[in-house]
Amino acid sequence: MRIAVLGVGLIGGSVGLAAKERLPESEVVGWGRTPANLERAVELGAIDSAAGSIEEACAGADSVLCAAPVAALPAQVEAALGASGPETVVTDAGSTKRELVARFGTDERFIGGHPLAGAETAGVANARADLFEGARWYLTPTNGSSGVLYDRLQRLVAALGARPQAIEAEAHDRVMATVSHLPHVIANALVGEAAAELTRDSERMPEVGPSFRDATRVAGSNPEVWGDIFDSNREAVAESVEALGGRLREAAELIRSGDRNAVTAWHAVAAEERRALLEADLTGGSLRELRVVVNNRPGTIAELALALGEAGVNIEDMALYPAPDMRSGAVTLWVSGAEQAERATELIRGLGHTVTALDGGD
Amino acid sequence: MRIAVLGVGLIGGSVGLAAKERLPESEVVGWGRTPANLERAVELGAIDSAAGSIEEACAGADSVLCAAPVAALPAQVEAALGASGPETVVTDAGSTKRELVARFGTDERFIGGHPLAGAETAGVANARADLFEGARWYLTPTNGSSGVLYDRLQRLVAALGARPQAIEAEAHDRVMATVSHLPHVIANALVGEAAAELTRDSERMPEVGPSFRDATRVAGSNPEVWGDIFDSNREAVAESVEALGGRLREAAELIRSGDRNAVTAWHAVAAEERRALLEADLTGGSLRELRVVVNNRPGTIAELALALGEAGVNIEDMALYPAPDMRSGAVTLWVSGAEQAERATELIRGLGHTVTALDGGD
Repeated sequence: MRIAVLGVGLIGGSVGLAAKERLPESEVVGWGRTPANLERAVELGAIDSAAGSIEEACAGADSVLCAAPVAALPAQVEAALGASGPETVVTDAGSTKRELVARFGTDERFIGGHPLAGAETAGVANARADLFEGARWYLTPTNGSSGVLYDRLQRLVAALGARPQAIEAEAHDRVMATVSHLPHVIANALVGEAAAELTRDSERMPEVGPSFRDATRVAGSNPEVWGDIFDSNREAVAESVEALGGRLREAAELIRSGDRNAVTAWHAVAAEERRALLEADLTGGSLRELRVVVNNRPGTIAELALALGEAGVNIEDMALYPAPDMRSGAVTLWVSGAEQAERATELIRGLGHTVTALDGGD
Repeated sequence: MRIAVLGVGLIGGSVGLAAKERLPESEVVGWGRTPANLERAVELGAIDSAAGSIEEACAGADSVLCAAPVAALPAQVEAALGASGPETVVTDAGSTKRELVARFGTDERFIGGHPLAGAETAGVANARADLFEGARWYLTPTNGSSGVLYDRLQRLVAALGARPQAIEAEAHDRVMATVSHLPHVIANALVGEAAAELTRDSERMPEVGPSFRDATRVAGSNPEVWGDIFDSNREAVAESVEALGGRLREAAELIRSGDRNAVTAWHAVAAEERRALLEADLTGGSLRELRVVVNNRPGTIAELALALGEAGVNIEDMALYPAPDMRSGAVTLWVSGAEQAERATELIRGLGHTVTALDGGD
């Protein structure tokens, strides 16, 4: 099987590495606009050979992956379809799908894709064979897509270690707007609001706590990348921002009303909703929350993570609430199911820390 | 010095432990509504003796700390002032200050307080002597406060390891509304919005990425506690929620406009704002962001944290972007200043990981 990878950055390079490791009979041809990156990809073993042009890369390919940045995808997909034969499936790895599918979805060879992996780094130097291991990889076939080519693509995605799932392009972009793009908008707005406190009273720089850190961690991340993503999904993002604005207006009214019981009930609903969302993909049982107070010595968090890792307890999510000296504090861990929670509790107690399990039930 | 602690939970217990460790000549008397907690506090050495009533605890005390939950503070402060002599300073540890100061600020003996520590756990079992080490501890004196008693209080707070800072009650509540309470409102609204996606299309449960996890980590946390906090700061919280709503409306317009350069510039401003906020309290230089790609083996994060800890590199903030199998992924670390960033980079490279330093300059 011949796979053409157009754009040899983190995603393209990782597809190459994964294919080399998991599909030993495959041949991976790469093309990229920057010759140095292409050379690096060959050196790293991410591609077998470097093509001089998109045409050369696509010639004879069974599958073509367009892995350019979002803004460059329309032109790249168009070129790839032009350079590919009638039996070649052409896909992409962009974070938004509506625009591409509207434009190319009538070509039976084009099936959009989006692996949920790797958003946090870039560059072929960070590529790795296991980037897609267990990751959701959305595919957006249309009524016009070739069944044979869709089948080939989803087998390829599964062979790379990912979990393919078909979704309509419009639904994909709407869901991504809410669970991925909206948090970035909120983070930006929240730091803006906090920064405005500074100018209101210039003597005082507010100190921020863990909830603020968590909520704003992605503020301003990768302006170029996110500029493109927002641009290509602007309607859905704007809609989800407005929908959140509506929820915030309701929340402001609720809080101002002074109906303490209603506010408490609203928090309890939110706790349930978050649990349901994080559990969506777990199989080991419902999420258990453990609060651990750790003693004042460096490396404690590490020791904790090691102990759980060695005992096979998966940490599904983790939040650190360090003391200002960063040497002590509390850790909240989410583990999956009662059994893992019990095991974790025992292990952590064995290390001399105090553990409180927050979820009873089941 | 005799210190009375009313309410022997996490805060009250930690004040006691810190005083025993750092002020060996002090005597700590505790009172609490639950006899079992009071006994436990004695056993843990958090208090020297348990008083049978607020009157007994306050008799002869130099300083009285009211550490009841927010909703119970007005009654407790009133009782403490009634039970204390003219030379006793009475303070509290509540998360909001306006209501208390409006009610008791004319009594020269009452000075409100709020240590920024310990919000994540509760109970005397989690108390520890170093809870306040390096933590900001806001104090809200008024024009009517006794200078002598303010001086005594701020010395006590500093002796417990905290960094006292005077702030007007109104400004305190406004700042807390933005940097502490608002993130909780947002987290609740965001999980509500994502949960609504489920009902829109019941076949599909959206998978959430790291940005969603971070932004919603505090969703629904401690409904009872947060119900009280929101209730006691409802005007300021409602105002900051509305202000954020205004920012979101502007953001939605900006995104919908399709002005990609303006969107990119907005992200860049947010990045700067976040850095400025997190740097507010650092002394080692500006924050440096390091992205680390870690290999596929358990315990890597732990090993990393240990290596940095042992070398004296302070991790100011950390974000994990685990692969779905939780055994590999990327870690973003924020360290303080160019020197620590360089040291960290070397150490991490030495462990065989790829590191990208995102902040150049100086």
